[in-house]
Amino acid sequence: MISLEQAHQFIEKRLAEIRFPEEPSNLYKPVQYILSNGGKRIRPSLVLMGANVFTDDLTPALNPAIAIEIFHNFTLLHDDLMDNSLMRRGRDTVHVKWGSNVAILSGDVMSILANQYIADVSNEILDQVLEVFNQTALKVCEGQMMDMEFEDRIDVSVDEYIHMIELKTSVLIAASLQIGALVGGASEKQAFELYEYGRLLGIAFQLQDDLLDSYGDSKTFGKKIGNDILTNKKTFLMISALENAGPEDQKELRLWLEKKQYDPVQKIREIKKIFDNCRIRELTTTKINDYFRSSLDKLNKINVEDQRKSVLRDFANTLMKREM
Amino acid sequence: MISLEQAHQFIEKRLAEIRFPEEPSNLYKPVQYILSNGGKRIRPSLVLMGANVFTDDLTPALNPAIAIEIFHNFTLLHDDLMDNSLMRRGRDTVHVKWGSNVAILSGDVMSILANQYIADVSNEILDQVLEVFNQTALKVCEGQMMDMEFEDRIDVSVDEYIHMIELKTSVLIAASLQIGALVGGASEKQAFELYEYGRLLGIAFQLQDDLLDSYGDSKTFGKKIGNDILTNKKTFLMISALENAGPEDQKELRLWLEKKQYDPVQKIREIKKIFDNCRIRELTTTKINDYFRSSLDKLNKINVEDQRKSVLRDFANTLMKREM
Repeated sequence: MISLEQAHQFIEKRLAEIRFPEEPSNLYKPVQYILSNGGKRIRPSLVLMGANVFTDDLTPALNPAIAIEIFHNFTLLHDDLMDNSLMRRGRDTVHVKWGSNVAILSGDVMSILANQYIADVSNEILDQVLEVFNQTALKVCEGQMMDMEFEDRIDVSVDEYIHMIELKTSVLIAASLQIGALVGGASEKQAFELYEYGRLLGIAFQLQDDLLDSYGDSKTFGKKIGNDILTNKKTFLMISALENAGPEDQKELRLWLEKKQYDPVQKIREIKKIFDNCRIRELTTTKINDYFRSSLDKLNKINVEDQRKSVLRDFANTLMKREM
Repeated sequence: MISLEQAHQFIEKRLAEIRFPEEPSNLYKPVQYILSNGGKRIRPSLVLMGANVFTDDLTPALNPAIAIEIFHNFTLLHDDLMDNSLMRRGRDTVHVKWGSNVAILSGDVMSILANQYIADVSNEILDQVLEVFNQTALKVCEGQMMDMEFEDRIDVSVDEYIHMIELKTSVLIAASLQIGALVGGASEKQAFELYEYGRLLGIAFQLQDDLLDSYGDSKTFGKKIGNDILTNKKTFLMISALENAGPEDQKELRLWLEKKQYDPVQKIREIKKIFDNCRIRELTTTKINDYFRSSLDKLNKINVEDQRKSVLRDFANTLMKREM
């Protein structure tokens, strides 16, 4: 069975082989740039790992995997523009380096390139794969729109939030596994079971990201701690605090959310104090573990030899232990 | 045989039947809005007319036709944002009405919706249709990028310009016919011949648009005359003038292109005087007619009953007579 690390290497190798047209250079250089960002390649690796549950021949899964990675980076490119994020993985974002128009158009091109790569599956499963891919792509856009809309709202519920991260983050992880499974010869039912494993795992993963953003160790997490708090992000933690805090904390939390001028260190400290008062860390951890366990349940129920599921089981277990 | 007018009605009817999701409303309302702009629906009509050359059953061509119309409007939506165009067909553009972020994301969604509709063809031709569609989509983006790059250049050659309009405008018209033909049961060869007819027709059509922008009658043309001149657009007319004008006219033309403050009526009049000096109108008309004739040649050579090609022949002849 292929390991996550091996899958990652296969993806990097295949990505490095792609030759984009030379002209118009302003269109394809940003594509090359963002695809060489040294990401973890989790989604395309999951395509290979999903296929590997059902077959040892992973070659047919390579181009669909590349499709997923190109699509994912297309969404990052346009999201960075919409959020006006200046940096990604330590480098200027595309719109900073080339301007908004190039960012829009290069993103559009990536979305089309993804369609070309995803279409490279056998004719017998082409319509199924396309249906999964297109449905998923729509959901990712819906999730991004909800995320943007939540910025201006203070009354987002936990259910709405979970639905949003399911759309924005989790369905693409799920679809990666499902498409890999279909390419690997799984039945529709089996492929959908793998989708469900991925969907629940993806929600757990995003909630964990929320938790680490406030309670992680900046060295192991790789980002500054407290960024979500400073940007008033309606994460699971913030929403739960707004729902659960007592009257005093409630009032103070809302004051912090409205304050325009503040000392960042103080804001992070004070809001985390409120989080602690309503045991947000424990609440979130419980929720994360619920999702991890449900995802493993789904995986266990898939009717294939147990050993073929070992890599995905390890993957979930490793994620679950991501360091605080 | 279906007429252009009938094809148009079929498209409007099918478009009116589409039900987009209610939520997130900021994502789908702009899609509904731009699709209800009352355009001429030339491209989707050509899908139906292309199919009709080979079959009388046009139902299977309807969804691919809708795909083309959605894709075309996606490019208009993003182009309007990139060009910061404020109005389209007498209404605010999407980014004016909803802001840039909504325009980016709604455009992205339309591109995905187009993929869903184009995938609704029989499995035997799905991979062929997708290849044509995705290749075409890439070319349209390449054309848009070239068009933006030409804005800052004064040395664009006629060949470069023709290549740009071929990509930006003509290949989508051509692919509409080709996809219609494939859905209608044409051989790959026949479908490609129809593509070639459309490609040449599309170039003729765009050159005619350039000509009408300077020499048309604003009432029949439906736009203000001289807009390309005022915005220094490197159209076929301007490029030819820059290539052909004598030293005096050459100098004056460049002065006009650099001038920041001017009386618009005077600028149009003076530049048209230079156009007239180098017989740009006649040169362009000859070029247009060459392309129209070549497109009709291609159509005539397609190996099907002559009567089945009558509507497309009439279409080219009607376009050729578009009023000055």
